[in-house]
Amino acid sequence: MSKQTKFLLNESELSTHWYNLNADAEALGLDMGPVLNPKTHEPVTPDDLAPLFPEALIEQEMGTQRHVEIPEAVRDVYRLWRPTPLYRAHRWEKELDTPAKIFYKYEGTSPTGSHKPNTSVPQAYYNKEAGVKRLTTETGAGQWGSALSFATQMLGIECEVYMVKVSYEQKPYRRVMMQTWGASVTPSPSDQTQAGRDVLARDPDTTGSLGIAISEAVEKAVQDPDTKYALGSVLNHVLLHQTVIGQEVLKQLEMAGAGWPDVLVGCTGGGSNFAGFVYPFLEQHVDGRDKPRIVAVEPSATPTLTKGHYAYDYGDTARMTPMVRMHTLGHEFVPPPIHSGGLRYHGMSPQVSALVHSGVVEATSTPQMPMFDACEQFVRCEGILPAPEAGHAVWGARHEALKAKEVGEEKTIVFNLCGHGHFDLAAYEDYREGRLEDYEYPEEEVNKSLADLPSVST
Amino acid sequence: MSKQTKFLLNESELSTHWYNLNADAEALGLDMGPVLNPKTHEPVTPDDLAPLFPEALIEQEMGTQRHVEIPEAVRDVYRLWRPTPLYRAHRWEKELDTPAKIFYKYEGTSPTGSHKPNTSVPQAYYNKEAGVKRLTTETGAGQWGSALSFATQMLGIECEVYMVKVSYEQKPYRRVMMQTWGASVTPSPSDQTQAGRDVLARDPDTTGSLGIAISEAVEKAVQDPDTKYALGSVLNHVLLHQTVIGQEVLKQLEMAGAGWPDVLVGCTGGGSNFAGFVYPFLEQHVDGRDKPRIVAVEPSATPTLTKGHYAYDYGDTARMTPMVRMHTLGHEFVPPPIHSGGLRYHGMSPQVSALVHSGVVEATSTPQMPMFDACEQFVRCEGILPAPEAGHAVWGARHEALKAKEVGEEKTIVFNLCGHGHFDLAAYEDYREGRLEDYEYPEEEVNKSLADLPSVST
Repeated sequence: MSKQTKFLLNESELSTHWYNLNADAEALGLDMGPVLNPKTHEPVTPDDLAPLFPEALIEQEMGTQRHVEIPEAVRDVYRLWRPTPLYRAHRWEKELDTPAKIFYKYEGTSPTGSHKPNTSVPQAYYNKEAGVKRLTTETGAGQWGSALSFATQMLGIECEVYMVKVSYEQKPYRRVMMQTWGASVTPSPSDQTQAGRDVLARDPDTTGSLGIAISEAVEKAVQDPDTKYALGSVLNHVLLHQTVIGQEVLKQLEMAGAGWPDVLVGCTGGGSNFAGFVYPFLEQHVDGRDKPRIVAVEPSATPTLTKGHYAYDYGDTARMTPMVRMHTLGHEFVPPPIHSGGLRYHGMSPQVSALVHSGVVEATSTPQMPMFDACEQFVRCEGILPAPEAGHAVWGARHEALKAKEVGEEKTIVFNLCGHGHFDLAAYEDYREGRLEDYEYPEEEVNKSLADLPSVST
Repeated sequence: MSKQTKFLLNESELSTHWYNLNADAEALGLDMGPVLNPKTHEPVTPDDLAPLFPEALIEQEMGTQRHVEIPEAVRDVYRLWRPTPLYRAHRWEKELDTPAKIFYKYEGTSPTGSHKPNTSVPQAYYNKEAGVKRLTTETGAGQWGSALSFATQMLGIECEVYMVKVSYEQKPYRRVMMQTWGASVTPSPSDQTQAGRDVLARDPDTTGSLGIAISEAVEKAVQDPDTKYALGSVLNHVLLHQTVIGQEVLKQLEMAGAGWPDVLVGCTGGGSNFAGFVYPFLEQHVDGRDKPRIVAVEPSATPTLTKGHYAYDYGDTARMTPMVRMHTLGHEFVPPPIHSGGLRYHGMSPQVSALVHSGVVEATSTPQMPMFDACEQFVRCEGILPAPEAGHAVWGARHEALKAKEVGEEKTIVFNLCGHGHFDLAAYEDYREGRLEDYEYPEEEVNKSLADLPSVST
């Protein structure tokens, strides 16, 4: 094995098509079930979604075409950072004293520092093509809001971001980044929407929540024919756009002479970075190759895949979004204040949920303290500072590498480092200074929330 | 011209040797003059420098060997991020409506986000080889301190950083980053050194300064035989290590089919990123190729090259460091509080000063407001957020591109984007919110400071 550290692809190897898992649902034994109208509990039609999304994205959401061509204008923006590097973690392997070979795909080289622009750019493109003037969205800590601001700036449409008020006030840098790309950023709840005004009337001092911010962004999109809404994870078309990640990894592992991987590890919040990384391996599997073990890692404080129910539920607290079959902690679940804001979601992508339900994908979880411990070790060896979200994949890869050491097997482990932690240094300091704690799985609250789920038979 | 955006080199093209400008001083018509002992005003000997630096670095500082082999252990750490990408700024060119082709080298992909690790890694290496247990240094906003912390962590020696107190308190994230790499970070002035105690006795509420922090770091190194000192710019060996930048650019411009560049633009504080970028072009020039126009851009509030004297001066306020012939605003000059902390220095590398003095390099300056304006335009087009220091090169490249437009010439402009601005978003916000101002060149204060220069004849 050479000491080569980075495996770089030229722009000529930029993906030309996204891979659509829906085409292989049957081959993989998946039954996602239809998406349901939140009021009627009947399967949604494209018309139901038209106020929120342009036709091209609704087609991608519902379609079963195996490959979807990436428009040249999207590839042209991808070129600003894609293809992203694949690294071999020589120094970390040595520190872990493991016989395993560890590779990681690094999505932190994008303009906003994560995988999110892989989908914000095509979403901005298809909206622009459909004559949409403005996109609304919600953001918590600001990772997705940054990505959409960047994309709308590149494509030349407007962007309105509803940012959870507590983040707006306490984490100004992501807000500044969004504004740098020309977005308007409003602390949520705001007086610009009925949803916001209702909340403020009840509780003028509220710090806001992602659920409220979604409601505000959706309301603004529905009211104005020139405005639509964009979501950063969960939905099929979002996961579709992320498949450029795994497509590149396949080529890069070949460059590295790494052979077929034994284990793939990713972190899951809504499921999009995980899906984008592993789906191209599942496509290869459907076409006859071995299936690697595939491990999804989530925080044990929001154990959607490992402790949630597999059931129909709403995507938001206010029950405005369609219902999907997914692993859920209940739409009224309020996640504990862990530092991985991007993983604090009560639900999960229906596709990823079905993959776990059918046993194609394994799910596991870790508290945040061992996760930060793994990240500190990683950055001291590899130099790259992981975002806490991505840190769950770092923890998972270490877990697998130490297992390989125990049994003395030269496994090939590949994980997705989906973003850098340059805006998360306060969390690292809290960890080092002993100001963090692990949260118990809030079983009682989850049970209460799950008891409230509507019974739907499809 | 293809639409290719990034020009990436494989690790097999990692530099094997650094280029030493001292070897070509005569060919370039440069007379740096000897470095002088601060007390005797006699040329320093290697023995004078031995308490601060290991022998290998002193040899590099004084040597005239044209190429210095890069140790394999250093290349092995370089591989974590080098070679760095060269970009063609297609979108920015279009926005500027210029016939110029603009390329930029991006050093922000290093673990600490700037070019600084190019020298911190070999400095840590040679110290480790010499049996040194610990390096001390000073840092202002933390860019250099981060780079040295990273390097000492990689090579397995200790690191003590004296961080200017006001930055320690107001800019915690760089401090956390240094601690993440295992460095001990002390707010300066501290009670750990005589220099610090003296200052605190006079002024217990001082916010500190880079000059005081240098004195503390040097004092600690001189007192302990196991401890040495590391400097992040100005000195010849530091500039030597940075030449990997320009060596890669030469190869990448060839990949891009760009032809020989017309103009090179870099920013200057102590001179190291600028030197590393342009020296390999000067080497080619000595060997017979045309000399491109080479432009150094500095803040007009600290106009070292454009308004300073070319004279012998000390590197620090306390007159502890050797004297060098350089462009200087006087060692007692207190720079205005502009946001480009890395460019707030009263002096300049003797080599870069000699290049400007001899006319090989042009120097120009910009106030910070137009610099931020150029950066905002750049990030909206290219997606990369420049550090304000690097922003001076962005401004300079735009200035050249607009001149090319005026005269309708298809110039090839290449600039060095030496670092990202992820830790400078507060400055961007201050700019956007109108909280920044431009500073007049403090002529009176500079004249006062220059009047104090000792007269030295060599």
